[in-house]
Amino acid sequence: MKLTIALTFGACFAAGAAWAAEKPAPAPNGIELPAYYKNWRVIGVSHRQDKESLRVIVGNDTAVDAARTGNTHPWPDGSILGKLAWKDQTHPNWPAATVPGEFVHAEFMIKDSAKYAKTGGWGFARWLGMEQKPYGQDASFVQECLACHDQVKDNDSVFTHPAPLP
Amino acid sequence: MKLTIALTFGACFAAGAAWAAEKPAPAPNGIELPAYYKNWRVIGVSHRQDKESLRVIVGNDTAVDAARTGNTHPWPDGSILGKLAWKDQTHPNWPAATVPGEFVHAEFMIKDSAKYAKTGGWGFARWLGMEQKPYGQDASFVQECLACHDQVKDNDSVFTHPAPLP
Ligand code: HEC
Ligand code: HEC
Repeated sequence: MKLTIALTFGACFAAGAAWAAEKPAPAPNGIELPAYYKNWRVIGVSHRQDKESLRVIVGNDTAVDAARTGNTHPWPDGSILGKLAWKDQTHPNWPAATVPGEFVHAEFMIKDSAKYAKTGGWGFARWLGMEQKPYGQDASFVQECLACHDQVKDNDSVFTHPAPLP
Repeated sequence: MKLTIALTFGACFAAGAAWAAEKPAPAPNGIELPAYYKNWRVIGVSHRQDKESLRVIVGNDTAVDAARTGNTHPWPDGSILGKLAWKDQTHPNWPAATVPGEFVHAEFMIKDSAKYAKTGGWGFARWLGMEQKPYGQDASFVQECLACHDQVKDNDSVFTHPAPLP
């Protein structure tokens, strides 16, 4: 029993230390890259012809639960929406299929209606490329995100309508 | 303690019974719809211009672990790949974005190199629409899947190349 606890603790500590060592720098507004976003469930998908890229929209458990119960007006505090984008590529064996090429960026909107009251209740952040370089010179990069997302203020500043699922 | 066990057992039983009652009919080849596919992680995404539909490719834990460690030549037994497809729709606020419309189908490839030796080691199945109607008149529908997937025999009959992730 003691051994199991020691081993478990050791494993957690090692995993934590590995993440701490590798983890990308925070965004210029102080937001940290969410640790487990690559394991989040799908909320939507999009093909942006203007940006020639494919996107998958994922969410943490709070966001996915909200999406699946139609509780998104507004999205509850604690929701995090993530968007992963890849450059368009043609499938080598099926030319009519556009599939993911180079990874472009991962970006996030974190709902905290008190903390982010000035930006529609959402904290914005983006990390570029495989090296996950934080986007923006300083915290004012958020104005760029807002300028666009404000167009969908009526939808809690969120473009994505959760994809229907059986 | 006894009460907790009884309650837990009761809850599991209720959840199990609810799934048994609702669960769609099996495919004509006997394959059952995988129970938790809506919670699986993303392996890829595709926009099929020939079918005017967006697809997300997901996998069970065995498949996602294989995808993320490059262990897909061949995919290990126990891997299940799922594909969710939606009709193309134009985003109402962003016309350059194609987003999911109506849900088309969920389809699966289940790796068991012994059981499905005759069909490249994969069991194929598809369920149509929100009502999840099994596809195919009889078990021979699998020939249709194979006719297409055989084109990528060199890639273990799988079209999807896992999307790069940081
Ligand atoms: C030029 C317009 C534009 C700008 C600027 C923009 N976005 Fe978006 N964003 C969109 C659109 C359109 C979508 C819908 C999904 C898609 O098609 O890509 C979206 C989707 C998202 C999503 C998924 C949730 C949703 O609203 O659908 C996140 C997260 C996101 N953006 C973060 C950001 C961040 C962070 C920034 C700034 C660093 C930013 N966006 C800047 C247009 C924009
Ligand atoms: C006309 C060609 C064609 C037929 C027929 C076809 N597929 Fe596919 N399938 C594809 C292509 C192309 C992809 C790659 C993803 C995409 O672009 O849709 C794919 C992807 C898949 C995937 C994701 C894993 C992968 O190989 O990329 C599954 C699961 C799948 N198909 C199941 C089926 C089943 C089940 C059937 C038959 C009931 C079937 N397919 C019939 C062309 C076909």
